[in-house]
Parts: sequence; structure tokens; C-alpha cells
Amino acid sequence: MSTLVIKSGGEKGFAEWQRHFAELAPGLTTQFWDDPNIDRAQADYALVWEPEPGALAAMPGLRCIFSTGAGVDHVVHDPAFPKHIPLYRMTPGGAAQRMGEFVCWAVLHLMRDGPRITAQQRDHVWQEFTHPAANELRVGVMGLGALGARAAEMLAGLGFQVAGWSRSAKDIPGVKSYAGEAELPAFLARTDVLVCLLPSTPATRHILSAPLFAQLPRGAMLVNVARGAHQKIGDVLAALDDGTLSAALIDVYETEPLPADSPVWSHPRLVVTPHIASIPSRRERAVHVLGLIREIEAGREPPNRYNPEIGY
Amino acid sequence: MSTLVIKSGGEKGFAEWQRHFAELAPGLTTQFWDDPNIDRAQADYALVWEPEPGALAAMPGLRCIFSTGAGVDHVVHDPAFPKHIPLYRMTPGGAAQRMGEFVCWAVLHLMRDGPRITAQQRDHVWQEFTHPAANELRVGVMGLGALGARAAEMLAGLGFQVAGWSRSAKDIPGVKSYAGEAELPAFLARTDVLVCLLPSTPATRHILSAPLFAQLPRGAMLVNVARGAHQKIGDVLAALDDGTLSAALIDVYETEPLPADSPVWSHPRLVVTPHIASIPSRRERAVHVLGLIREIEAGREPPNRYNPEIGY
Repeated sequence: MSTLVIKSGGEKGFAEWQRHFAELAPGLTTQFWDDPNIDRAQADYALVWEPEPGALAAMPGLRCIFSTGAGVDHVVHDPAFPKHIPLYRMTPGGAAQRMGEFVCWAVLHLMRDGPRITAQQRDHVWQEFTHPAANELRVGVMGLGALGARAAEMLAGLGFQVAGWSRSAKDIPGVKSYAGEAELPAFLARTDVLVCLLPSTPATRHILSAPLFAQLPRGAMLVNVARGAHQKIGDVLAALDDGTLSAALIDVYETEPLPADSPVWSHPRLVVTPHIASIPSRRERAVHVLGLIREIEAGREPPNRYNPEIGY
Repeated sequence: MSTLVIKSGGEKGFAEWQRHFAELAPGLTTQFWDDPNIDRAQADYALVWEPEPGALAAMPGLRCIFSTGAGVDHVVHDPAFPKHIPLYRMTPGGAAQRMGEFVCWAVLHLMRDGPRITAQQRDHVWQEFTHPAANELRVGVMGLGALGARAAEMLAGLGFQVAGWSRSAKDIPGVKSYAGEAELPAFLARTDVLVCLLPSTPATRHILSAPLFAQLPRGAMLVNVARGAHQKIGDVLAALDDGTLSAALIDVYETEPLPADSPVWSHPRLVVTPHIASIPSRRERAVHVLGLIREIEAGREPPNRYNPEIGY
């Protein structure tokens, strides 16, 4: 029977991990990293976020280390990190579906005027108001990679009029395709809710700025779930102030965490989410870790092991 | 060329109605009810909410009156209401789709912990947190009439594990059916997010109360978009306080408007919406009114005309 030691989210986080592993793999023993009574020499696996330097090296029986996140810097910056033990980044599948669920929430939230709902509840104001229906709203998804394509498909399934814009034309059922610089103006002119899922490249840096907003129908709405570098946040605030945009929901910022004194937090027409659009749930990550453990216990080495020589 | 006089939402409301009618029916002339320069004797149609008593009787050319809402009390309580003129309630189609869109928003909003997103923004707190994925959440829809069935279908399309409970078993693709009192406990035991779309009857009054909540998995979530009479709101607040429920989104209340001093407004785990789940947009209503006008101008009498003898 194998043992997995977990350091992630303190005691409460451990309890949730433990619950998922108990349901998914009753034969696996899970232990809390901070428990002084566990026998570290007997641990087979470690699932960690920011382990104390030297701690992994003091677990000689480890067969594999898993990071709870996509990055592994928090493990490998430890001078005593045991390089001979396989280390895996957290890369569960389902990223496109997860992002699609967030995008559907974001677009529905703006359609239903989430900022107004929030303000009315805060102020104890009961005032009915109407919204467009999904089939009255033209959503435009910029970027039709795996994430953008799935989001566009899910939005179309909800009844929105969906178009996508990408470098080359794409064929997604129910989604009108616009491609290249030449078709960008036509795409923007028909877009009531713009969703950014572009890759982050020098060419797309600050693409979400005043000149682009001016090409949308007046009062359009914006969702950015890609990268903070895509937007000039000052231009977003100005566009919200002058009515060029009527509302925005932004999950990513050039400076993260967003400073507590940033004016972004308090704009009444902007919904701020803290870069949470596509964080896999603990359960999804538990499923992923168990898949890796099964491979290892079957004597195979799963692909995409961290390689210290190339750094990822 | 026909003329439609509009009294709904003041000057701003009129501007929106006018825009929709201009796009949908360029041949129709729209006039603002409060405009002193219009010739009321020449009006063919009136689209109204709370017209001043006597005002409709002073428009002798009216061929038909449309209420902007589902009710017509605000028209017929006028002692001078001209009973010989056909009066229509506002009954556009698309109610099931509209409700389905609201329910999808509500369930995604609770799944993504909307109350926490709101609180963190209010407090300028940047803290990442994780959510379950749709396929990890078991949604249960109580009531599988036209509205409930469409909501269940749309939720299944987003990836949720959906079941429905109704008097008799239903066959909806992707939705597990539970029926009758005997299967209610099993339905509740597997439901992480309970959505109420039951009809309002003596049997369903206060069904959403402590004994029912106790049968849900601990920390389940609640969405009520049916009628305020379905819930004991005190039980909902108590269940949120003791962790029986982890969050709720409620659109309907026994007392509406919800009084400004009600404790309901400020519960940190409750999202209050002001009975807006299925209000048709002005555009949908404009489309509906134009359909009625087309019938009338073709010499037919559309069905469901208000009948003063039976009162609806």
C-alpha cells in the first residue's frame, strides 16, 4: 500500500485532498505534511506546493514528486531538491472545458447585468430590470485555439449568436469564422460581447485598447480570460467611463496580484476575478495524480517529467 | 401607416422601444405617450404600463391595447377602460429558453462562488481559489414542466450531472428522472445544487424548508426561480448559517419587493435577484406586439384576448 504525503492549502486543504483520494483510490494512504507523527522515510509520493527547502531531500523513499500547480519553481529553487526523483507539473486535461464553463458564466453574468445585481443587493434596492436574450447577443471570441474553440461551441449551445476571429479561418459548428487582420473590423463591428482568448505574443500585446474598442458597437461588453498583457487597463476603464464599453469582466492583469489600492477594484461596471478562470479543481488534480501513480506502479515512466537541464 | 403610442419606462424606456420597432418594422410610427404634441385621436395602438385613468378612453381611434407585462390589472382597474377595444397581455414565446439561460447563469455563479468573487472585489482582496468542474456537480431540477425541462437540458449541455424530479417520470436526454414522493429522498441525496422550478400549489408551499434541506448532501446549494411561496426563507438563512447549505441564489420571495430592512439582503452566502429570471427583453416583447399587429391588420383576431367577463 502506497503512501502520499500532501502539503497544499494547510489543514483544510489537506482534508479536501484526503476526501477526494479516499473516494477515488481507497487503497492509497494520504498523510498531512505538517503532521509530526508521520514517518517521512516511508513516504512513496509527495504532492506539494512550496515545500520547505531540504524537506524533500529528507524523504529517501520518494518515488515521485508532484507539484499541485502548473509551475515547479517552488520545488526546484530548493538547493537540496533531489534531482534524481521524478518531478511532475500539474497538467490535468479538461482545461478547455473548464475555461468554456468560466466563459459561459462570464458572458451570462454580463448579459444579466451582474454588476447591477451586486449593487442592488448591496444597497437593498429591489428594482426589476430586463436583459437581452442570448439569441439577441452577438458574442465574438478572439482566438480559436483549443480553449477559444470550446468556449465558442459552448456559447453557441446556450443560444448566443457566436463568431470567432483567428489567424486562419476555422470551421466550428454554429460559429461564424473571421480570419486575419483584414476581417478584424467586420468581426468587431458585429460583436456585442468580446471574449479574448488569444495567445500572448508581441503581436497581441495591448490589442485590447482604445482603437479596438472604438470599432465595437457602442456599449459593447468585454471579457478577458487570456493574459493581462492583452489589455491596456487604463483604456478599459476610460471606455467604461465614456460608454464605449458598458461592462467588463477581467480575470487577468499585467500586475498580479492586483494592488489593493488599484482603481480597477472599484469601477462599478467592471467585475474583477483573481485569475481563476481555469484553475483545475482539487478533484481534477487528484484524478490526474492517481493516473500518474498508476503508470509509475505499472513500471512505466509517464511523459512530460520535469527535466532540470532544459528547465521545464 | 399605423401609429403606436408607448407608455413604458419613461423617456429612456421609450427610446429603447422606439429603436427596436424602427429596426423590426420601419413602417410603424411610434410616439411617446408623454409627448404633448401627439394627436391621440389618431393613435391606432397603445402599448402601456399603468396608463393614467381615462387616458385610453380619450383615444377613440384605438384598434388594440397591449400591456407591456403579463398582467393587465394596471389597465382594467381604470373605471373608464374602453372594454370594447381588444386588450392583450404580454405573452411572448421563449419563456423556457429565457429561464434556462437564467438557471445556467445561477448554477455557474454558485459553482464559481459568485458571493466570494463579489466579496473579494468589494474588499480589494486578490486570492485565488478553485471550483468544482461542471461534471463534478450533480444538479437536481425540481419540476420538469416546459421551464424545468429546458433548464435541465441546457445544464446537461454545459456538462453538469443533471437529474430531475417531477410527479411522473420524464424522458429528457441526458437527464436522470426521479418521480413522485417515493423517489424524492434518493433525488435529494444525490443533489449538490437544487434548482426549484415547481408549480405553485398548496402541496408545494414551503417545500424548500429545513426537513428537505436536511436530505441534501451537507453544503449543497439552492436556486429558487419559481415562486416565493416555495421557500421558508427563515429556514434558508438558518441552513446557510449552519452549513447545511453553502450558498443560495433566490429570485422570488413571499413579500415582494423585499423590504429594505430585510436581513435577507445582507446574508453573505445568499445572492438576491429581484424577480428577473424570466422577464422578456423589450426586443422580444416588440417582436410579440408586431406579431399581434400583423394579425389584426390582416383582419384576424389573435387568440387570448383579455376577457373582462372571466377576468383574464
